[in-house]
Amino acid sequence: MTDGPTTDDLTTDGPPFTLDDVRREGLMAAPGTEPAAHDGTGRVGLRFTVHSDAKAPPSERSVRVPPGVTVFDSASWNGIAIDSTCGGHGTCHKCRVKIEGGGVPVTRHDTRTFTSDQLADGWRLACLVQATRDLDVEVPPLTTRPKAATVGVGRQVILRPAVQKRYVELDEATLSDQRTDLVRLTDAIDDLELTADLHVLRRLSTVLRAADFKVTAVVVDEDLIDVEPGDTSELRYAIAFDLGTTTVVATLLDVGTGTPLSVSSRLNKQQPYGGDVITRISATMMDPDALGRLQEAAASTLSELAGEVCAEAGVDPGHVYEVAVAGNATMTALLLGIDPEPLGVAPFVMTTAQPPTMLAADLGLSLHPRARAFVFPALGAYVGGDIVAGMLATGMDRDKRTRLFIDVGTNCEIVLSDGDTILSTAAPAGPAFEGGAIRCGMRAAEGAIEVIKLDPTGDEPVTLGVIGDVPARGLCGSGLVDAVAELVKVGLLDASGRFVPEERAAELAPALADRLTKIGEERVFVLDRTSPDDDPADGVYLSQRDVRELQFAKAAISTGWTLLLEQLGLEHGDVQQVLLAGSFGSYLSPASAIRIGLVPQLPVLRIVSAGNVAGEGAKMALLSVRERVGAQALLEEVSYVELSDRTDFNDTFVDQLGFTQP
Amino acid sequence: MTDGPTTDDLTTDGPPFTLDDVRREGLMAAPGTEPAAHDGTGRVGLRFTVHSDAKAPPSERSVRVPPGVTVFDSASWNGIAIDSTCGGHGTCHKCRVKIEGGGVPVTRHDTRTFTSDQLADGWRLACLVQATRDLDVEVPPLTTRPKAATVGVGRQVILRPAVQKRYVELDEATLSDQRTDLVRLTDAIDDLELTADLHVLRRLSTVLRAADFKVTAVVVDEDLIDVEPGDTSELRYAIAFDLGTTTVVATLLDVGTGTPLSVSSRLNKQQPYGGDVITRISATMMDPDALGRLQEAAASTLSELAGEVCAEAGVDPGHVYEVAVAGNATMTALLLGIDPEPLGVAPFVMTTAQPPTMLAADLGLSLHPRARAFVFPALGAYVGGDIVAGMLATGMDRDKRTRLFIDVGTNCEIVLSDGDTILSTAAPAGPAFEGGAIRCGMRAAEGAIEVIKLDPTGDEPVTLGVIGDVPARGLCGSGLVDAVAELVKVGLLDASGRFVPEERAAELAPALADRLTKIGEERVFVLDRTSPDDDPADGVYLSQRDVRELQFAKAAISTGWTLLLEQLGLEHGDVQQVLLAGSFGSYLSPASAIRIGLVPQLPVLRIVSAGNVAGEGAKMALLSVRERVGAQALLEEVSYVELSDRTDFNDTFVDQLGFTQP
Repeated sequence: MTDGPTTDDLTTDGPPFTLDDVRREGLMAAPGTEPAAHDGTGRVGLRFTVHSDAKAPPSERSVRVPPGVTVFDSASWNGIAIDSTCGGHGTCHKCRVKIEGGGVPVTRHDTRTFTSDQLADGWRLACLVQATRDLDVEVPPLTTRPKAATVGVGRQVILRPAVQKRYVELDEATLSDQRTDLVRLTDAIDDLELTADLHVLRRLSTVLRAADFKVTAVVVDEDLIDVEPGDTSELRYAIAFDLGTTTVVATLLDVGTGTPLSVSSRLNKQQPYGGDVITRISATMMDPDALGRLQEAAASTLSELAGEVCAEAGVDPGHVYEVAVAGNATMTALLLGIDPEPLGVAPFVMTTAQPPTMLAADLGLSLHPRARAFVFPALGAYVGGDIVAGMLATGMDRDKRTRLFIDVGTNCEIVLSDGDTILSTAAPAGPAFEGGAIRCGMRAAEGAIEVIKLDPTGDEPVTLGVIGDVPARGLCGSGLVDAVAELVKVGLLDASGRFVPEERAAELAPALADRLTKIGEERVFVLDRTSPDDDPADGVYLSQRDVRELQFAKAAISTGWTLLLEQLGLEHGDVQQVLLAGSFGSYLSPASAIRIGLVPQLPVLRIVSAGNVAGEGAKMALLSVRERVGAQALLEEVSYVELSDRTDFNDTFVDQLGFTQP
Repeated sequence: MTDGPTTDDLTTDGPPFTLDDVRREGLMAAPGTEPAAHDGTGRVGLRFTVHSDAKAPPSERSVRVPPGVTVFDSASWNGIAIDSTCGGHGTCHKCRVKIEGGGVPVTRHDTRTFTSDQLADGWRLACLVQATRDLDVEVPPLTTRPKAATVGVGRQVILRPAVQKRYVELDEATLSDQRTDLVRLTDAIDDLELTADLHVLRRLSTVLRAADFKVTAVVVDEDLIDVEPGDTSELRYAIAFDLGTTTVVATLLDVGTGTPLSVSSRLNKQQPYGGDVITRISATMMDPDALGRLQEAAASTLSELAGEVCAEAGVDPGHVYEVAVAGNATMTALLLGIDPEPLGVAPFVMTTAQPPTMLAADLGLSLHPRARAFVFPALGAYVGGDIVAGMLATGMDRDKRTRLFIDVGTNCEIVLSDGDTILSTAAPAGPAFEGGAIRCGMRAAEGAIEVIKLDPTGDEPVTLGVIGDVPARGLCGSGLVDAVAELVKVGLLDASGRFVPEERAAELAPALADRLTKIGEERVFVLDRTSPDDDPADGVYLSQRDVRELQFAKAAISTGWTLLLEQLGLEHGDVQQVLLAGSFGSYLSPASAIRIGLVPQLPVLRIVSAGNVAGEGAKMALLSVRERVGAQALLEEVSYVELSDRTDFNDTFVDQLGFTQP
C-alpha cells in the first residue's frame, strides 16, 4: 500500500490510506525532525512564490490559515495550483514545493522523491507539510496535465467534467453524401448522444463552412451548446461559486486540467437588506419589490466576481461554459428569483429541493450565452446546497471514519457520520459568530481581532492578532471564541460563564485584573487599550452579555452534535475527526473550540479546519459528473433530524451552556 | 363491419373501410337518388349557417371548393366545426347537417340516423354528402365533447394532445409534512413524470398559497410549464400554422375537444424578398442582413395571424400553450433564423432534418410565455416539413391503397405509396402555377380567372369563373390548367402543344376562332374581352409561350410520378387515388389535371382535392402525440428518390411534354 503510487491509488472509492495516516507516518518516519505538534491556536502566514513558466516572472501571494493546514490545502483553497494526482495522500509524489529557510521535517515519502541536495535546499511534498509557523513556499511550474485533481478536503477527483470540447475535421457534403450538418457532426462524435438546441443550429452551417468543416464542438453533458471554428479544445473553463449570506467566493477552473486559475471574493451585495437569511426573507415579506432587488443583488455579485476571475486569469468569459453554485436554501431561492417566504415561516417548506436545469444567463451571468448553471440541491430549508457541497468536498459519504462536520455560522449545520449512517441537523446559533449582538463585534475584516492569547505570568499578558496589522477596531468570531476560551483558561470566567469577582481576579491573574472593569453597569474585560487610564469604552472589550451570547450559540451547536452522537450511540472519544467548515468555522482556533465546548473534548489534532468546503464542493461538481451524481445521491443518503421535535432538546441545551474548567 | 359503428371504428390503425367504400355504398343504397357523378370541373360554393348555441345568433360563412369534396371536409378545412368521432367514415352518425332545398341523395346511413320527416327537411350526414353543386348548409350546435376528432383527409384522431391541464386540490404543508411545493404537486399527478423549469418554480410557491393550494397544472409533454390559480382546465388552446412560401394559414384549436375555433390566412410577409424559395435564399446570399429581416417577416406573419385567430375566437393568447408549424425546408430555416444558403446550392444540405425542442417565443410569438413550438421535420432540402405534415394528414403510411400524393407548386413534391413502400421525390415545376412567367399570370386573388369552360357549339362558347365576381384581371394557376385543357379538348392546341393554324381553328371551332390571334409576333388565345374589336393585349389571354411554360411544368411533375410508378412496377390504372394538395393543387379541376397529363389517366372520381394538408397535419400533431410520433417515423419510412441521378429522366421528360388528344 505504501510502496509508492499505484493505479489503485487513483480510485476515489475510499483512499488507500488517509491524510491522517500519512501525517502520522510522516512524523514517525523522521524522528527528531518532527515539528512541535501545533497547539491549535493562532494563525500562520504562507507566502507563495508561484512560477508559471520559464518566460514569465513569478507571482507572489500571501495567505493566512489556522495552524495544521497543509501547504497543499493552503495553496488549493486560495486558487494556487500545485501538481497532484493522488488526492494529497502522499502517493503520487507530484506536489513538489521548496520551503525557504529549512527546518521542515522530512518524511519517508520526501526521501523517496528528492535527492539529498534537494532535501537540503528545502524541497518537500506540499501535501505532507503542515503549516505550524509562517512559511515561504516556492511553487514550480505545473508539469503534468493530470487526469485527476485534488480538491476539497483531501478528495481526489478523476476528471470527467460535464463540459467537453471535441475538435473534429469533417468531410464536406457532396451530392452522394447529403447528410445534414448536424448528423455529419454528431456522426464524428459517436461516443456521445448529442442534442442541439436552436441557438447552436442557427450558427452551425455558417461556422462549418467558414471553418472548412474543421471545428470544435462544445458539449455540456450531452447537449451541443456551440460549435467554434478551428481547434479551441484547450479553452474550456468553468466557475465555482460559494454563495454565502455574507461573503461570495468565485474560483475559475480550467476543467480540462482541474487547475484553479484565479479566486476572488467579495461581500454579498444583499448585505443592505440584512445580515442574515431571516432579515432578508423578512425584507421580501414587507416589500413586494424586494425579491426582485435581492435577486438582482445576488446576480450582480456573481457577475462582478465572474468578471474579476476571468480578467485576473486572462480568460475570455465566452469560454466559460458552466458554473456551479453552492448556497444555503435562502440564498439559492433569492438567486433563482423564488419567493423565500415559506422558508422563513413554519412549516419551513422549500419550493423544490432540486433546482432545475438552467443557464448561467438565467442567473444574470454574461459568460458563454448557453453556459449552464448547476445549482446544488438542498436537504431542507436549513440544510442547504452549501452543506450538500460541503459533504461532497469532505467525502462524508465516502469515508469510513466517524466524523463530525460543523459549519459554524448564524445557522449552524451539523453532519455526523459513523461511516455507515449519516445524520444532519441545523442549530440556530444566532449572529454572535458573525459579530452580531456583540458589543465590539465585527466581521473578519481589517482591524478585527481574530486571535487572542492571554499569558498572565508572561511579559506580554495579552497578545492580539489583528487582521491587516492595523490598530484593533473590533472583535470577529474567532477572536470572540479565543477571548472566552482564554478567559476560561486563566479562570477569569467561571464554569457558569460569569466574570469572577474583582478580588478573585486579582488573585488569579494580577497582570490582567485591571482589565476587568465596568462600562455603565456591565462588567467587561478590556482586550485592547492604549493605556490603563483610557476610557475602556474607547477600546475593544468583551462584555458579560457578549459571553452570554456566545454561550447560547455554542450551547445550540453542542446540543446539536450531542443529540446526533446519542442517536448513533457514540461518545465524544469515538469521533475520529471534526471538520470545522464555513468562512467563519475554518478560521476558528481548534484549541479554543475545544476549550469552550463548541466541539467534543478531543485531542486538538483531531479538529481540522476544512476550509471553504462549499466552494470546494462546487469545484468538484464542475470537474466530475460522477461527483455531481454523488451530490444528488446525498439527498437520499442523509437523514435530517429535526431538533425541535426532540423532547430532550431543552435539557441538553441547559447542560451545554456552561464551561468546563481546565 | 358495416353494421353501424363499433368501438373498433375508433382505432386509427387503418379505417375499417374507406371513405370511397362508404360513398360507393351510399350511392348504391339509394338507387335513383344518386347525384350525377361530377365531371371534375369548375367550383362549387357552400354557404354554412352555423349555430353555436340557443342564445347566440347563427353565423354565416361562404366557401368555394372543387366539386366532389364532402360537406364535412369543406367545413373542416375552413375551421367550421361539425360533430364527428369516426373520422368521416359514416359510422358515428354524428355529423348531422341540414341541406336547404333538398335534392341531396339519401344513403342507408342517413335512413338509420334520421326520421322520414328529418330526411324530407334535408337532414343528412355531412361526411356522406359530396358537394357537386352550390349548397346551403345548416350546422347545429356541437353536442358532443368528443374523445376523437376528424382532421386531415378523413383521418380520425384519438385526442391525446401534448398540452394537458390537471386541476388539483392539495393538502397544505405542516411540520410533519414538509414536502417541497413541487413534490406536493407532482405527487398529486402521479401518472406523469413531471419536470419543472425555473420559470414555473419562480411562481409556484406564490400561486399555491394565493390559491389555497387549489391550482391547475399546465403540462406540455411531461414538462410543467405553469401553475394557474383555480380550475382553468377547460382553457387549453393551440395554433396550427401552415407556413407557405406564398400564403400562411393559422387555425386555433381547442385541444381538449379537438374543435377548430377560428382560421385566418394572409400573405407571407417575406413576399417582398421574392416569390419563391430560391429568390429568398438568394436575398440572404446578397445581403448579410436579409436573413434577420426574413426571420422577422416570418415571425411577424405568424404573430399577426395568432393575434387574429385568438381575437376572432375570444381566446386569451396566454391560454395558447403550443403551436405546430409545417413549412418547406427553406421557410422552416428562415423562421428558425438558420442560414438557408446550403439549401439553395448543390449539394443541397439541411442544417438539421429534425428541429429541436423550442418555445413559441423563440419564433417571436407572444402566447403563453412558455408555450412550446413543434416544427415539422423534413425529409430533405426539397421535401420539407409541409410534405411530412401532408403525409400525416393523408395517412400515406396508414392506408393500404396505392395512392399518389402531389403537392403542386413551384417546387412540386410527389409521394407514392403502394401500401407498403413509400417513395418521395421533388420536381422543379417552375413558377407557372403561381402565375409566374405567364403573360397574364397572377395569384389566385380577386380578379383571377380560376375556372374556364369552352363550348364551341353552345350559346356561350367561353365561360369564365372569376374570383370575387369582378372583371377578370388575369389568370391564376387553376385557370391556366383549365385554359390549356379546354383548348386541347376542342382541338385548338395540338398534341405537341402548338396552336393549330387559323384555317384549322375556323374548321374545328368557328365560334372561338376569332379569339386565336397575334400580339406582336406571338400567337395568343384571348380569354376575356369586352368585344371582338378590342385590342387583344388589353384583355386576358393565353400565349403560345404560356402554353410552353405549362408544358414544362406538367412534364416535370409527370416525369416525377412516372419514374416513381416505374420504380414500384405500377401502371397508371393501379393508382387508386390521387391526392392533389397544397393551396394551389387543391383548387385544380381534376378533369383538367387529367386532360393535360398532370396526373395519371384515371377516372375523374379517383382524383381528390386533399385541401390544405400541411395545415391539417399540423392540427393532427397538436391533437395527438401518437400522430406526432408518426410524423417523426415517416423520416425513416419514406425513401427519397433523387431525380437528377436518374439516367432515364430526360427521355421520360421529353415523352411527357406533349398532350394526349381526346
